Amino acid sequence: MTGTGEEDEELLARAALTRVLEPGDPHGGRWLREHGAAGLIRLLTDRRAVWESPPGVKPERLDGYRGRAALADPRRDLAVAAAVGGRFVCPGSPEWPTQLDDLGDERPVGLWLRGRPDLRRWALGSVAVVGARACTPYGAHMAQTLAAGLAERGWVVVSGAAFGIDGAAHRGALASGGATVAVLACGVDVAYPRGHAGLLRRIAAQGLVLGELPPGSHPTPSRFVLRNRVIAALTRGTVVVEAAHRSGSLVTARRAQRLGRFTMGVPGPATSGLSGGVHELLRGEAVLVTDADEVVELVGAIGELAPERRGPVCARDLLEPGTARVLEAVPAAGPVSAGELARACGTGTDEVIGRLYELHSLGFVERQGDAWRLGPGKEDGGAESGTVRRGGR
Amino acid sequence: MTGTGEEDEELLARAALTRVLEPGDPHGGRWLREHGAAGLIRLLTDRRAVWESPPGVKPERLDGYRGRAALADPRRDLAVAAAVGGRFVCPGSPEWPTQLDDLGDERPVGLWLRGRPDLRRWALGSVAVVGARACTPYGAHMAQTLAAGLAERGWVVVSGAAFGIDGAAHRGALASGGATVAVLACGVDVAYPRGHAGLLRRIAAQGLVLGELPPGSHPTPSRFVLRNRVIAALTRGTVVVEAAHRSGSLVTARRAQRLGRFTMGVPGPATSGLSGGVHELLRGEAVLVTDADEVVELVGAIGELAPERRGPVCARDLLEPGTARVLEAVPAAGPVSAGELARACGTGTDEVIGRLYELHSLGFVERQGDAWRLGPGKEDGGAESGTVRRGGR
Repeated sequence: MTGTGEEDEELLARAALTRVLEPGDPHGGRWLREHGAAGLIRLLTDRRAVWESPPGVKPERLDGYRGRAALADPRRDLAVAAAVGGRFVCPGSPEWPTQLDDLGDERPVGLWLRGRPDLRRWALGSVAVVGARACTPYGAHMAQTLAAGLAERGWVVVSGAAFGIDGAAHRGALASGGATVAVLACGVDVAYPRGHAGLLRRIAAQGLVLGELPPGSHPTPSRFVLRNRVIAALTRGTVVVEAAHRSGSLVTARRAQRLGRFTMGVPGPATSGLSGGVHELLRGEAVLVTDADEVVELVGAIGELAPERRGPVCARDLLEPGTARVLEAVPAAGPVSAGELARACGTGTDEVIGRLYELHSLGFVERQGDAWRLGPGKEDGGAESGTVRRGGR
Repeated sequence: MTGTGEEDEELLARAALTRVLEPGDPHGGRWLREHGAAGLIRLLTDRRAVWESPPGVKPERLDGYRGRAALADPRRDLAVAAAVGGRFVCPGSPEWPTQLDDLGDERPVGLWLRGRPDLRRWALGSVAVVGARACTPYGAHMAQTLAAGLAERGWVVVSGAAFGIDGAAHRGALASGGATVAVLACGVDVAYPRGHAGLLRRIAAQGLVLGELPPGSHPTPSRFVLRNRVIAALTRGTVVVEAAHRSGSLVTARRAQRLGRFTMGVPGPATSGLSGGVHELLRGEAVLVTDADEVVELVGAIGELAPERRGPVCARDLLEPGTARVLEAVPAAGPVSAGELARACGTGTDEVIGRLYELHSLGFVERQGDAWRLGPGKEDGGAESGTVRRGGR
């Protein structure tokens, strides 16, 4: 099929460009708009291509791009990623989270992913929980409690896998059998920080690990800063738990605000420097939150994103077979644990959790404490081709 | 002079009515509007006066009012107040703080005062600092620090003299040689709470103690609640330091908000029940503050109240002689302490502090840490009849 061939070419070109363009490269977005990914790769790699150096880019600089493009080997990168259970998604992929398009020319070229769940669906019901690396015990407690509460309510907790608040947030979600996504400033096969290697393995097994950088890439200060725009854009809202003045978490929160996402902060003692940055946010547009209910009250019901990006409206018989099997196994009578469903479906608990979150983002099921049950209006007529809340079969 | 006679009659009638009408009595304000204070006293005390029971007031209830009016002896109350250095001010008195008129029919009939300073002038540059009785050490620390900081910047700290946050706020202001006002739910000669007898004495000596209730009156739960509207209306803004959900301090803050005053809250740990009420406020319209600078930034420059109630515009030669003497003693060269000024003027430090706050509210002087200096534009031409910042001689 020609269509598939074109898609492959686009995907390969974008995978290659993740080696050529730094995250948020100021020229990359414009070039991609003007030439397309495959066109841009041709311009950068074809020695016969005559490409006038674009305004603001010195010839030496363009040589740098050409040099990286010449070395890019997307098939090898895809193979390396696949070896650790990874994949590459890009604009146009069914799994591409379209809210990243709000970043305009700073939209990632593509994302490298590890983990089974569907990123697009998970992102629809996700909240970022971020904060200081050198957090206080209070901050760690709040991040963990908040993340556990969000996960218990069926929300996906997104963070940056750093020490401190980020780690506590991921752990809180994992500990409550919930969904979590780590957005890295390095390759998804690189364990950074080293001390979080085990945590990253668990996140990749139960959730998603993703980043803009190709396999083997290491983080740099600017990559950390630019990674934050992905966290801000991917989620419905960002909660800052603890942050000193001038902290990177404030960058994420302010970016979220400019993108029209909800920005929230957890208050702390006015005497704590690590709450100073949060209080600074709260004196602006951010909303003060003290528990998961307050976060959920603000970010709204799952699937109720801004009107133009409502949750996908999808009839039950359009579900993937594996996901449909999990839905069929949820009893009309009442709640069931992920473990019981795994036994009923003859599959692993992690896989069932992933599929349950998919079903949750579509309104088919809801969480009830540690267990799951059919969503409102899903108990009757469950055997037929049901429709999600927003109707439209 | 007839005018003085009429004023005396009005003042005596209002002093008598503080024995007849409970604070915030729903009928009192209307009756006062309809009949005036002297007219209302006549209606209640003259056996020949035919007064149809007004709508919503049963005859027995009216009898209660008449009974209290018959027993009222305002001259005796004024004498009792005078014996503890007290006085009575009411609408129309030069010292009446006109911002209380914003309370409409719930405006106090009058206020009993102890202390030297001019209430009207002090109220113009005042901020309420209120909160829980059973506060935490963190809350007490914040109240004290905030009040000290406000006092150091020349602001008058108003609170309710209760244990906990209120006491810490008064003490913070006193400790920094600053101005503080206690608004009581009992007579100004009653030491309540008993444990604050010494504190109240110090406030009366260095600041002001005031209340709506006549000498000897004791507090009741409803008097505490209604006292809060006076704190809210008197001040430019209310800061709640610690308050549980459903706390009386939240009543004060919400009242301040409805009156168009600034409402502020000091954040605390989300895990602390005593910050729960404050966080509730901060999730609404209240502004998060962590230090005195942030409070002052919000409530604005002294004397810059809403346009219709700007600080009094008053030429230097209209100052009281005692106040003018203090101003003349402030050296053009630089800051001076209240103690040095007291020695220079041959008067007490408490009196000098009171007069300095008057001068401050008029823009003549400003605080600089523990000391005082001439206000901006006051250093030159100080010997002539100067005008305050807002011009208009």
